[in-house]
Amino acid sequence: MEAVILAAGWGTRLKPLTENFPKPLLRVAGRELLYRHLRLLSERGVSKFWIIINPKHRQHYQEFRARHPEFDLEFIENPYPERGNGYSFYLAKDHVKGPLILTMGDHVYEKDFVIRAVSLRGLIVDREGRFISPEEATKALCLNGHIKALGKDLKQFTGFDTGFFVLHEPQEAFSAAERLLQRKKEISLSEVMVEARIPCAELSGYLWMDVDTPADLKRATRLLVKHGVKGGGDGLISRYLNRKVSTWVSARVINFLSPNQATLLTTLLGLLAAATLAFSPKGAALLYQLSSMLDGMDGEIARASLRTTSFGGWLDSVLDRLVDFAFLAGLYLVWQPAFPWQQLVALCAFFGAIMVSYTAERYYGAFQHPLYQDFPLLRYIPGKRDERVFLIMLGVLAGKIWETFLVLALITNLRVFLTLTLVCAKNLGQHPA
Amino acid sequence: MEAVILAAGWGTRLKPLTENFPKPLLRVAGRELLYRHLRLLSERGVSKFWIIINPKHRQHYQEFRARHPEFDLEFIENPYPERGNGYSFYLAKDHVKGPLILTMGDHVYEKDFVIRAVSLRGLIVDREGRFISPEEATKALCLNGHIKALGKDLKQFTGFDTGFFVLHEPQEAFSAAERLLQRKKEISLSEVMVEARIPCAELSGYLWMDVDTPADLKRATRLLVKHGVKGGGDGLISRYLNRKVSTWVSARVINFLSPNQATLLTTLLGLLAAATLAFSPKGAALLYQLSSMLDGMDGEIARASLRTTSFGGWLDSVLDRLVDFAFLAGLYLVWQPAFPWQQLVALCAFFGAIMVSYTAERYYGAFQHPLYQDFPLLRYIPGKRDERVFLIMLGVLAGKIWETFLVLALITNLRVFLTLTLVCAKNLGQHPA
Repeated sequence: MEAVILAAGWGTRLKPLTENFPKPLLRVAGRELLYRHLRLLSERGVSKFWIIINPKHRQHYQEFRARHPEFDLEFIENPYPERGNGYSFYLAKDHVKGPLILTMGDHVYEKDFVIRAVSLRGLIVDREGRFISPEEATKALCLNGHIKALGKDLKQFTGFDTGFFVLHEPQEAFSAAERLLQRKKEISLSEVMVEARIPCAELSGYLWMDVDTPADLKRATRLLVKHGVKGGGDGLISRYLNRKVSTWVSARVINFLSPNQATLLTTLLGLLAAATLAFSPKGAALLYQLSSMLDGMDGEIARASLRTTSFGGWLDSVLDRLVDFAFLAGLYLVWQPAFPWQQLVALCAFFGAIMVSYTAERYYGAFQHPLYQDFPLLRYIPGKRDERVFLIMLGVLAGKIWETFLVLALITNLRVFLTLTLVCAKNLGQHPA
Repeated sequence: MEAVILAAGWGTRLKPLTENFPKPLLRVAGRELLYRHLRLLSERGVSKFWIIINPKHRQHYQEFRARHPEFDLEFIENPYPERGNGYSFYLAKDHVKGPLILTMGDHVYEKDFVIRAVSLRGLIVDREGRFISPEEATKALCLNGHIKALGKDLKQFTGFDTGFFVLHEPQEAFSAAERLLQRKKEISLSEVMVEARIPCAELSGYLWMDVDTPADLKRATRLLVKHGVKGGGDGLISRYLNRKVSTWVSARVINFLSPNQATLLTTLLGLLAAATLAFSPKGAALLYQLSSMLDGMDGEIARASLRTTSFGGWLDSVLDRLVDFAFLAGLYLVWQPAFPWQQLVALCAFFGAIMVSYTAERYYGAFQHPLYQDFPLLRYIPGKRDERVFLIMLGVLAGKIWETFLVLALITNLRVFLTLTLVCAKNLGQHPA
């Protein structure tokens, strides 16, 4: 499949950013707007891209292509952007052959939107438009599965124009453009699509928006970061505290911090917290909680900037274990438990803290399913990392080290025991010994 | 694809076991001989089985079928087994349609043999015959890719008849049998295949054998257990000591101990060892090493009896961590380290012992490749479980607890550090930050 991306607009409202620079090459959540289209559409099987550009930005686009040799893209120059985006689209006529996907280079779509949209037909219309301002958006009136009208000022409409088109017979739309161009010089894409009576399909509730102003750039970044949060393994503290902090920071640093750099940074902060135990246990506890609040950044940055790797996940897990061990070991050395049963409880806390993660990770390795997905009950049982760190912070601030180790040993090992019971119950039932 | 399995023989040399019982239903490594054929061929896409049986064993075969509803099998009775296995084969003529696989019900083939054999054509011939006695085996003379002669007393031969045939045009073989039956009443499969001039293909070095005597039954079990050892994660102690013990025991208990029961047994033994530390550290150390020697049993039994499950692997890993923790915790409590640096070293030993496994298991979850496969160097670095347990045993027997914790902390954490370095070096090179 091929794709056409319209990128010849003026970007007027983003000046001075777009004075001498094309809007589709501005960065949102660490990636050029255009890169997101290419990457997400490639993953859905699009192998050839035609980008309609303004000739004055030729140099920037050629540099972009040199930076991304993984995509097969060609530029079609529109020397008359003032003739409208319908004319831009028309310029692709003699290049594309089969079915095509048409998108707007200044729009942002989240991955799940693209995954679903490519299997639909015609203009994708969103009934809710949760992330756009309704006054400024283009509305669409769909009747009997076909577009009847498109425009900003429609009184009656069935949804919002997402700017994402799946055209199985694009020549109909090109012919419609040709007919309109015989009558006038400037034509809009909306006119073309209404004239061509292309189908429309509904896809509502996903994140998509157009980027028109500097405020939109920031908002798109923030929304992509938040939508990248996969909360499956998050505990209560993460959901109501840590994620608020980490997404706030992630959105602000995503353009210059890579996921692995974020991992390294929070690890160093965690190790610093452990070292601080020697001087100031309370300061150390606060630092530890701070590192835990920032712990989600690597994943958020990775997902929002389309940089997730298996390696990143592995590194994050291993270094989290290291930080947890370092802090607990420091706490143990500061505390110096005198009685064997205190020592045993502390050792059990060490064991439980690692095993909560070990049982879940080993489960994924064995079954290729997240443990929390197969046993949703475990989402509601405490003992996950965010909760452990918070508990330790509270315990240290209260000066109750013994009680902290005791509670930690209890909840983590209960969680491990419950995991063991659930997994055994399910599997021994299926495969009788 | 269909399969025909010849199971109408007398089993004379296995009396009294086969007095009133068919040889193909005898158990080898915890499974009926026939079950192995059905299971391994099913996994390679065979969906329909025709078993040629002796009518006097009808009842046993019907019970077998009722126990294994997962296979689509039908029995063809041969009321004249004395007419030879060529005649048995001929009885399938009107039942099978397309290409077929023909095997001998009293043969054992290891999984890797079957995986490779089904993609070949004609009689599978083994040049080496490593697991059979050459005097008694049927030899095959292949010339230009076709069988010229088959027999026990061939002077000139190119390999041994494995009893495994892949017949893409079985009607040629049935016609050959028909021609022979017009001349005489008793015909052997060898005569049929020579008459039909079927192709032959070489596949050498894999485990296959026929089971004729009670000694063969035991030997086949022992060989299947040994061939089930996947030594990728084995350390030195495992290779030269533990595996010798565990395979010896596994072969003897495989008919009445399931893999998960073996896991449970070695876990209990390990926990008993930890508890024994309170009374007799040296006795405890020996028990711990004993449990480590038997630790391979669950996997050996599972693989040899075709009972491997993702769950079994998960349970084994989790319980190994529990036993290791219990023993080290016991040792710590007995030892009572007085100085903080001793405590720190001991805690590092706890951490390293779990993390050796954690880094490897989490790697598998992330990359779907065994860590040892991607980084073969790690096979030669000490710190794996068998080596840790052996080291602990030596240390406790020598009464040197402090030194044991120190060496343990060093080798495990060095191994973890090396793993971290190797994985980072490889992946940061591939995905520049």
